[in-house]
Amino acid sequence: MPISGFPEWLPPQRMIEQYVLDRIRTTFELYGFAPLETRAVEPVDTLLSKGETSKEVYLLRRLQEDPDQKSDDNLGLHFDLTVPFARFVVENAGKLNFPFRRYQIQKVWRGERPQEGRYREFLQADIDVVDRDTLPFHYDTEMPLVIGDVFRGLPIPRATILVNNRKVCEGFYRGLGLADTDQVLRTVDKLDRIGPEKVADLLISTAGASRRQAEACLELASISAGDGSFADAVRKLGVDDPLLDEGLAELLQVVETAGRLAPGLVRAELKIARGLDYYTGTVYETQLQGYERYGSICSGGRYDNLAASGTERFPGVGISIGVSRMLGLLFGKNALAVSRKVPTCVLIALPDEEARPGCDAIAAALRGRGISTEVAPVPAKFGKQIRFAERRGIPYVWFPGEPDTVKDIRSGDQVEADAAVWEPPAEDARPRITQQ
Amino acid sequence: MPISGFPEWLPPQRMIEQYVLDRIRTTFELYGFAPLETRAVEPVDTLLSKGETSKEVYLLRRLQEDPDQKSDDNLGLHFDLTVPFARFVVENAGKLNFPFRRYQIQKVWRGERPQEGRYREFLQADIDVVDRDTLPFHYDTEMPLVIGDVFRGLPIPRATILVNNRKVCEGFYRGLGLADTDQVLRTVDKLDRIGPEKVADLLISTAGASRRQAEACLELASISAGDGSFADAVRKLGVDDPLLDEGLAELLQVVETAGRLAPGLVRAELKIARGLDYYTGTVYETQLQGYERYGSICSGGRYDNLAASGTERFPGVGISIGVSRMLGLLFGKNALAVSRKVPTCVLIALPDEEARPGCDAIAAALRGRGISTEVAPVPAKFGKQIRFAERRGIPYVWFPGEPDTVKDIRSGDQVEADAAVWEPPAEDARPRITQQ
Repeated sequence: MPISGFPEWLPPQRMIEQYVLDRIRTTFELYGFAPLETRAVEPVDTLLSKGETSKEVYLLRRLQEDPDQKSDDNLGLHFDLTVPFARFVVENAGKLNFPFRRYQIQKVWRGERPQEGRYREFLQADIDVVDRDTLPFHYDTEMPLVIGDVFRGLPIPRATILVNNRKVCEGFYRGLGLADTDQVLRTVDKLDRIGPEKVADLLISTAGASRRQAEACLELASISAGDGSFADAVRKLGVDDPLLDEGLAELLQVVETAGRLAPGLVRAELKIARGLDYYTGTVYETQLQGYERYGSICSGGRYDNLAASGTERFPGVGISIGVSRMLGLLFGKNALAVSRKVPTCVLIALPDEEARPGCDAIAAALRGRGISTEVAPVPAKFGKQIRFAERRGIPYVWFPGEPDTVKDIRSGDQVEADAAVWEPPAEDARPRITQQ
Repeated sequence: MPISGFPEWLPPQRMIEQYVLDRIRTTFELYGFAPLETRAVEPVDTLLSKGETSKEVYLLRRLQEDPDQKSDDNLGLHFDLTVPFARFVVENAGKLNFPFRRYQIQKVWRGERPQEGRYREFLQADIDVVDRDTLPFHYDTEMPLVIGDVFRGLPIPRATILVNNRKVCEGFYRGLGLADTDQVLRTVDKLDRIGPEKVADLLISTAGASRRQAEACLELASISAGDGSFADAVRKLGVDDPLLDEGLAELLQVVETAGRLAPGLVRAELKIARGLDYYTGTVYETQLQGYERYGSICSGGRYDNLAASGTERFPGVGISIGVSRMLGLLFGKNALAVSRKVPTCVLIALPDEEARPGCDAIAAALRGRGISTEVAPVPAKFGKQIRFAERRGIPYVWFPGEPDTVKDIRSGDQVEADAAVWEPPAEDARPRITQQ
């Protein structure tokens, strides 16, 4: 039976997922990100160092633990790829070249309560850059550009990357005179869920804000712009703080670089906080047009303190595509289609079992030139063999003979063909993925 | 700290692994296998239906289980890809076209005792064909040919696929007059570990064999041939049984088909049993030349009874490449090399920070034509930027100027270049993987 939260795609959906993953990987590699996979498990201590997510962790135990041996190292499944990456960097710092650019495409697990209908197993595709001691800021501007490149090549709705900077929020709150900036941030982060009035009440009741301060926080959170004008809007609120200045300058750099290189891709959205995470500066979220209410499908940010070992520090910035989340939304609306249910381009019809070696030879010749080919499972009337191909969306059926012929079963066109030279039209070589 | 049994490759090794996985996947798709992934977890009942592996299963529990809710469905991590696949086929039979050919490349987990130094997390790449009710035998002959094609394209030592057939063993034991053929099979399966004398003793003490019967079993197990002569050798042992006849005919078909289409790839090896598994006919193991003593790197077989639902039966045959196992062996001997540590082909040198937008534009132009490119992280003397490239094995450094020039830092050759048209030599476009 299906298990709630553990999605399984049928092969046509998996073919779409593979196509998306290929595009993601190719783009990441074009930018020089090196591939990495980390183990699926981490010591629970490593996972819990992030605190607030603790209840989401899946722990492992062996079905029959040896009584004379301690429990299996207290291992848990990773719930994201950033925490394991930070651990990996510290552990292997001596073997890596810094700044270290890596991508990582793996499943992660979260022990969500099943009835919430949220994924408990899902695929993430991350890029990160980390450096020793300090990491130049221009990498914060690069992240959305890479993601923009990925999405531009996919048959999906337009994506908008929403960017903010923790320093803007913290500096602003501090400049306003609010001491517990973390509590303010966490509260403002609830804006989309509970609305501005409840946020204002909470700011007053839990973060020591006056009505005026609470309203200023909400005004800041309401600022949204596709260009540098957001900075003027913040300035107009009349709050002054050096951390605010630093944050605004950084956020401007991200928004203006993207405005120059990928117009329309990035918006400054000052309510974005990613409240419970380890971010210290830039934060990213991504909306898919038409799917805004389902939340972010690609998120990340700058983390200056996540990876550290003794006095060594490895600041980083990264962004993570929620591949399962994005595809789950698109599959749910039937927004993506694939032209066939198998990779196969050609089915070799089998006149009788004695002809199988000859059919295998034709298949081998076609495969040798990169054409995906199957031989029919059993001899049958040709009409039945054509239906076999039709049901799978295989476009061509090959009939051995003197000479061989190949039939496009969509048009019915049948032509003489030689397995040593015949090529399908380029658009039929591989399954085509389209938006619908 | 590293966790015993959970290997992590550094990026250069992961690049080699990716290359191997790409080759595997491309070959599987050329044969028309459709992609599939199943969830990482199965109900423990599903996992334990295989019995003897029970102690190897990792169970999951949430760190903070809700007291008002039952434990998380008794979920465990899958320990292979065949059991989940059989479950998936039964569950989705109405949505699949049979015969169903799929490949599946995923991690699996086994709760091995850590001190044995065995993998507890590893990557498998499986192909299987299943059908309703009956599955034509020719698919048993196809499996080794697909794997032969995969391996032929990889820079690894020569692989030999060893094939046997359970029916040969069972029929032979029965024809000899031994009733508990399972016990005989399990005992003979220990041959490589404990040697022929101990196997003979065990056959006598635990399987009710006479000395003469035990010796006949060992004689059968000693038969090995790259052609059909194995059948004559079996016949010479003078045992007669209809199941033996059936098994010999099947095994002959696998060996002779492979002998014709891929000479030298397949050997009949009558000691292969895969004792504890669910196989009912053909069984496969694979030896890598020079690594024979480490055991099989690619195994599988025919299973007629694994997937069943009520009166419906889905017989299958499959084979599984132990990717982590194979690469672990090859990495251990430093047998594989990659020409650089990053995908990057070109580093754009950065004269000063003001030049970054221009450098980004050059990088964008190169990437737009599929050339993996990075811009230097910080401005520095050109000698330092060349060393940055050298340390990573990046072959080309691009110097913006009037005109731009590009330098092959291995030869020192530097030529004028235009980002709109320059191409690296084909052998430098991507990292090269070689045997060493």
